[in-house]
Amino acid sequence: MKIDGRNIVGYDYSIGTGLSFQGVNPISNSLIPEQFFIASQEDVEVAMFKAREVFCDFSKSSLEQRALFLEYIAYEIESLGDVLITKINEETGLSLDRIKNERARTTDQLRMFAAYVRTGNWLEATIDTGIPERKPLPKPDLRKIMFPLGPVVVFGASNFPLAYSVAGGDTASAFAAGCTVIVKAHPAHPGTSALVGQAIIKAAKHNNMPNGVFSLLFDNGFTIGKALVEHPYATAVGFTGSLGGGRALFDLAANRKRPIPVFAEMGSTNPVILLPEALKNRANEIATNYAASITLGTGQFCTNPGLLLAIGSEELEQFKKSLIAAFKLTNPGIMLHKGIVDAFVHKSESIFSESEVKLLVRSEKEADTGQGRPVIVTVKGTEFVKNPALHQEVFGPFSMLVECESVAELYSCIEYLQGQLTGTLIGEPSDFNEHRNLVNLLHQKVGRVIFNGVPTGVEVCPSMTHGGVYPATTDSRFTAVGVHSIKRFLRPITYQNAPLDILPEALKNRNTLSLVRFINGKYSTKDID
Amino acid sequence: MKIDGRNIVGYDYSIGTGLSFQGVNPISNSLIPEQFFIASQEDVEVAMFKAREVFCDFSKSSLEQRALFLEYIAYEIESLGDVLITKINEETGLSLDRIKNERARTTDQLRMFAAYVRTGNWLEATIDTGIPERKPLPKPDLRKIMFPLGPVVVFGASNFPLAYSVAGGDTASAFAAGCTVIVKAHPAHPGTSALVGQAIIKAAKHNNMPNGVFSLLFDNGFTIGKALVEHPYATAVGFTGSLGGGRALFDLAANRKRPIPVFAEMGSTNPVILLPEALKNRANEIATNYAASITLGTGQFCTNPGLLLAIGSEELEQFKKSLIAAFKLTNPGIMLHKGIVDAFVHKSESIFSESEVKLLVRSEKEADTGQGRPVIVTVKGTEFVKNPALHQEVFGPFSMLVECESVAELYSCIEYLQGQLTGTLIGEPSDFNEHRNLVNLLHQKVGRVIFNGVPTGVEVCPSMTHGGVYPATTDSRFTAVGVHSIKRFLRPITYQNAPLDILPEALKNRNTLSLVRFINGKYSTKDID
Repeated sequence: MKIDGRNIVGYDYSIGTGLSFQGVNPISNSLIPEQFFIASQEDVEVAMFKAREVFCDFSKSSLEQRALFLEYIAYEIESLGDVLITKINEETGLSLDRIKNERARTTDQLRMFAAYVRTGNWLEATIDTGIPERKPLPKPDLRKIMFPLGPVVVFGASNFPLAYSVAGGDTASAFAAGCTVIVKAHPAHPGTSALVGQAIIKAAKHNNMPNGVFSLLFDNGFTIGKALVEHPYATAVGFTGSLGGGRALFDLAANRKRPIPVFAEMGSTNPVILLPEALKNRANEIATNYAASITLGTGQFCTNPGLLLAIGSEELEQFKKSLIAAFKLTNPGIMLHKGIVDAFVHKSESIFSESEVKLLVRSEKEADTGQGRPVIVTVKGTEFVKNPALHQEVFGPFSMLVECESVAELYSCIEYLQGQLTGTLIGEPSDFNEHRNLVNLLHQKVGRVIFNGVPTGVEVCPSMTHGGVYPATTDSRFTAVGVHSIKRFLRPITYQNAPLDILPEALKNRNTLSLVRFINGKYSTKDID
Repeated sequence: MKIDGRNIVGYDYSIGTGLSFQGVNPISNSLIPEQFFIASQEDVEVAMFKAREVFCDFSKSSLEQRALFLEYIAYEIESLGDVLITKINEETGLSLDRIKNERARTTDQLRMFAAYVRTGNWLEATIDTGIPERKPLPKPDLRKIMFPLGPVVVFGASNFPLAYSVAGGDTASAFAAGCTVIVKAHPAHPGTSALVGQAIIKAAKHNNMPNGVFSLLFDNGFTIGKALVEHPYATAVGFTGSLGGGRALFDLAANRKRPIPVFAEMGSTNPVILLPEALKNRANEIATNYAASITLGTGQFCTNPGLLLAIGSEELEQFKKSLIAAFKLTNPGIMLHKGIVDAFVHKSESIFSESEVKLLVRSEKEADTGQGRPVIVTVKGTEFVKNPALHQEVFGPFSMLVECESVAELYSCIEYLQGQLTGTLIGEPSDFNEHRNLVNLLHQKVGRVIFNGVPTGVEVCPSMTHGGVYPATTDSRFTAVGVHSIKRFLRPITYQNAPLDILPEALKNRNTLSLVRFINGKYSTKDID
């Protein structure tokens, strides 16, 4: 498939403003030939108009139709073959293995949502049958179902050019819910975006989806993103990226005449607490695991462990020695784009300028252009508690070891943490018994508590929570990963005394979809008499 | 029980600023003797500190403990007997029958939440067991559960001094979720608030709930409400009231350093569409029902039908005649407080000042002091579409009949409507067949679609949606009525590879709570091997 640099506006293509930009190869730091046209305000208008115009149609597509659409997107992405893999590598510098894994994750996600759509569980069909003879007032017949919000604006994320970009988790869950989708492509991988966008269009056409179910707009600035979020027809926003970016979108959405929900998954330092007995028994093993986890994918994961906390002891000294030894041998790696390298360098430097922050270890190899050089700093618990600058995420292969003098100091460090995607406890059973309150404390900050593992690696399954208290996300009540992420784009709607032929299939007396329904206070798969 | 005019700050009492205010009897327009002390900033600090301090404890209370607490609140409210009924009547002018009904609804709600807490369904226990031998990476054991957000700030609503006030739906659902609660009492019924607040304290002490699970603060201005919403320890807000009030709280919460969710249930005009065949067959009956629904409780329901829409015809003329005849005989009624009377008068007058708005009918009886006089105006569809001033809610016994010249005009009126709690269709089966698109259109605006009924009367049950698109609420993804309103105050949390003894009861291998759990992609009540 040839890359088309035009904006995808439903089933039409547009050169928008006529102005264009190019992708950059982060390895060679050189421009990639293809031109991508910056969308115009008119493109925004037309894309949003179509998205709204066909929303009603799409929202009424059958579960099977929607599932097939999702499966076809997966198929079309796979059909792009090496063209896609090569393009991603060219635009992001990610390794071929990593890209192939991410492609598998992305297509798995699409198929998982297809399967979930078919179950209909997410419709949460709830029925209370009427009692016309009830005194003093008759009880009406009430039937509730989850209904899609409307057009959803999705922002592609730079660190997951497939899994959290054009056909990533946000788009897949929005389609699954029955929402039309308008994606603002991330300017760091425009060619990838164009290829995947065309794959979605092919899948949409093949499945007779309406013209407007999907649009993809390009911009290397903020104008188009802002116009989309502020557009009256937008009903929700999905975003993965920086705290600054996510908060800006949240503010735009909250300041609208009619505010709309924004699910922004933003920064996280993902604290890891190293408990004493574990350090005694396996300092070496932990150090090796963490040297790998901190530098995995050049540290460009939302769940990168950016913060290690421990109580000072001989064992901690041993752990530090092992960590230094293992970490020295790690390699600088290419980062996704120049903006990310610059931010990594700038933020690491600014952390060093904070009082009492000391270098623990750097990779021995220095960074080439476009690379991030792994680094771990260390600071005392007393300093960490009083300096909020040390609590910020440094996106990249960076971590900070906070050394506490006592258990009490460790607790106050945790107490002062901001919201997090994950929190990890490394301990022996005796550690957990002694520090049960730490689990409780961590609980109140994070979306996922990990025991004796690393936070990197987000399994895609129903029981995953990829979310957490602000600033990890803008709304801790939702997850961005797993089938339950569909809830971000659904709202309940109740039918009171509706004629049976008007009710949606899921709420009719005959349970033709074989749903588990909540009927008169009990779960049931039966028909209603 | 004697009324204590002091602020309830956990298990302590405070005279706050030392300044006080008094309730007003809306019938006699005279001050009620008891003094209520305006809370101080320190009261806010202490209440929030306690609410956060004991949150962890309360969040870990067993389902049974929490259910008993809710049931005891219901019992203590009933034990207040006539003291409570008399006080509500004195402060709000609501009829004794209405108050008794509302008390029953309130205690039923509390018991319903108790029963729902016991089921544990709301925990949404979801488990994916690990596969340590999976290649290339082991699959971790992941277990997810819904966890309470933290301290919730609740604002008492003036129009439901029991059901949506101190121990109303917001408080009940927040307690059910495991959240601690700080209520800002509505200044229009301080004595009622004090009595119910004391009932909650008695129930809390009887059930050994921690000191800080509940606080109640008084203020007749905005200072305390603002301080509560802006307090760093607040994690969510529940509100029922005006669009202005709800939006102000939403803005405060969105502008926090750490934004928190606000569920504000605000204005709604609750459009009612009168379809042709129905008007042909039963104009009289519909007119009588609506004369009653518009004036029920002096129109002081969120679901009051403030907007009737129909296509001009002989039958519509007949309907208008019947409506005029029935409506003339309705009575002015006491409104909840002077602010509401003033707003009603002011907003009705300002609607009259809009071009082409004509009086259809008023109650023959004029209003006494403190009363609202029922009124219906009429306007053409062409005017309605172009004038947003006509789309605003007039809280009270007011409705507007929009007369359209054609089906197309009726559709554009619906198209231009803002979000609504409810939308009602009055029609015969043939009407629904012909106007299927109207149902689809209405769908996209409302939380509840009613067929051949009146929107007033909100059944409290799982399949109720009392919510809707902005400005009906600030977040259409939730309901304020029914057990699912608990979702406003819950967030998912995942345990990865947690030791079994650390897992919450609902996620352990043995299903001791007999929950319906979602295990490896299937609903099951079985233990895990």
